[in-house]
Amino acid sequence: MNRIIAIALLAAFAATTPVLAQDNEKPDYPSPNAIVDTAPASEWLTIAPSDLLVMDLAPDAQGDARRVVIQLMPEPFSQGWIRNIRKLAAAHWWDGTSINRVQDNYVVQWGDAGYDNPESGETEQKALLEGLETVPESGYETEATAGKQGNIVLWHPKNQLTDSYSDWTWFESGWPLAQEIGDDTRTLSRWPVHCYGAVGVGRNYSPDTGSGAELYTVIGHAPRHLDRNIAVVGRVIEGIEHLSSLPRGKGQLGFYEDASKRVPITSIRLGNALAEDPSPAFEYLDTESEVFAQYADARANRRDPFFIKPAGGADICNIPVPVRRVTEE
Amino acid sequence: MNRIIAIALLAAFAATTPVLAQDNEKPDYPSPNAIVDTAPASEWLTIAPSDLLVMDLAPDAQGDARRVVIQLMPEPFSQGWIRNIRKLAAAHWWDGTSINRVQDNYVVQWGDAGYDNPESGETEQKALLEGLETVPESGYETEATAGKQGNIVLWHPKNQLTDSYSDWTWFESGWPLAQEIGDDTRTLSRWPVHCYGAVGVGRNYSPDTGSGAELYTVIGHAPRHLDRNIAVVGRVIEGIEHLSSLPRGKGQLGFYEDASKRVPITSIRLGNALAEDPSPAFEYLDTESEVFAQYADARANRRDPFFIKPAGGADICNIPVPVRRVTEE
Repeated sequence: MNRIIAIALLAAFAATTPVLAQDNEKPDYPSPNAIVDTAPASEWLTIAPSDLLVMDLAPDAQGDARRVVIQLMPEPFSQGWIRNIRKLAAAHWWDGTSINRVQDNYVVQWGDAGYDNPESGETEQKALLEGLETVPESGYETEATAGKQGNIVLWHPKNQLTDSYSDWTWFESGWPLAQEIGDDTRTLSRWPVHCYGAVGVGRNYSPDTGSGAELYTVIGHAPRHLDRNIAVVGRVIEGIEHLSSLPRGKGQLGFYEDASKRVPITSIRLGNALAEDPSPAFEYLDTESEVFAQYADARANRRDPFFIKPAGGADICNIPVPVRRVTEE
Repeated sequence: MNRIIAIALLAAFAATTPVLAQDNEKPDYPSPNAIVDTAPASEWLTIAPSDLLVMDLAPDAQGDARRVVIQLMPEPFSQGWIRNIRKLAAAHWWDGTSINRVQDNYVVQWGDAGYDNPESGETEQKALLEGLETVPESGYETEATAGKQGNIVLWHPKNQLTDSYSDWTWFESGWPLAQEIGDDTRTLSRWPVHCYGAVGVGRNYSPDTGSGAELYTVIGHAPRHLDRNIAVVGRVIEGIEHLSSLPRGKGQLGFYEDASKRVPITSIRLGNALAEDPSPAFEYLDTESEVFAQYADARANRRDPFFIKPAGGADICNIPVPVRRVTEE
């Protein structure tokens, strides 16, 4: 599909109204974060605790707790793998496994590192749960009929959201997605994209697609070449610094050569199955809201005081969807 | 400038010839790294030691040395700041300063953290060197006459290198650059881009452009909105893991609130001014070479065995220029 046409499909919206600053004559524009702060409560949508995957690591060297919270993708994306992940969490399957790979500017990966059996000389893997689904490769993309797409972010025509990896990118239900129109010009395919913090399913060579027992998150520049080659099942919404700041592995692909460097995983649970009460609560800014459109525009055209030249565009991964923890009153 | 025209300007080149694998019937394509390994010695170009900035940090908790090597940008980019940086290194100005800011998915920043004078109650900054240049904001971009551009990577028409932040992006003399044609349709402006590992010059509000004494490197998704708003002066070519894996700062913008978390900088020197002999030696893959074109094509269209769906494109920051250390015979 012609990229220019794809951009023209997106409707214009009024830019954020400038406010005159007190101390100079230049119009003062709020920063993207300041715009988010103006969102009314009604534009923040609740993330169900049952859609959270909460990973507790062993405490760090200072004895401080390390918790990573992942939001699982909603339907219709990657649901086969996500059903497996829910089962693995319910069975406490990950407890006692570890973070095994930290590759700079790429991914942190966790799961069963295997056990080197001294008698057999073989590395033995932990048995998987019975009854997990084998998801076909077609699950990496979701078909839709052109014209039946959901709401999209209204986008200023000058704010280019061009993409090197798809016909176009957009936000829907709080998630960054990419789309492509098939050669038949009728079939529309969409898929979740690998941005910073995206969580995906490790796998072996095709046709294996992974079970969901082996997971990774992106800790560098968006590796979009993985889109449609690996399942994206969620994103880290809190605590990614406990993964991104880990020492890089010195083995091939960033695996820890020295098993003592692996970080033990104490437990992985769904957010509604934690011992604590109440469950952790998060919400995201409605990506179909006016405030999100203003925020995205401001990310693409920084006019707040530090900036002198607005970019005039942004790539999908440079517009992170605002997510916040709901604190108790 | 129309993006489609920009893409059409780029000439086609023959795709990498597939090689039949031994163990199956499918054509086997080499990985991007395997392609780089085929480059003859003549396609690797030397980086002069005088264009390296070598930062030694205090040893880590295990007593291991931490060295970060930065390649400074060549002319005509950012040379005013780079002259300042050379003077600061020659004067040993950074010795005893520190890493002060680590913001997840953004930057690591270093320089003088200031000294909290208990008598005055003020934070005092280390005096800058005399004779440093004040570089104007026009230095963020370099003008060139359209049509007089240098060599560009030959690019398969299907390998889209579209960009949300410029008219088009390309590689020249080993560096990722962006370009824009002015409203007069004659003036061509180009600038270095903020990819992972890019090193830039911290500054205060406009019209300040920074001296070069305060530097940062990118440790997350390319913050391209900083392009043309801050000077890019180089890139980390070795040891970025000593910065990217540091604990994130808990203060505003990722600054360390607790001064004891700052990482001391033992010394910063140009590569030809180190105590050791010989100087560290690096080289980069000639971005005008046939092998680089094949490598870039393979990055945009992964066909090596793990991949099932080539992306058909890549963004400029997902095609890192290969750089390697030259080891002694």
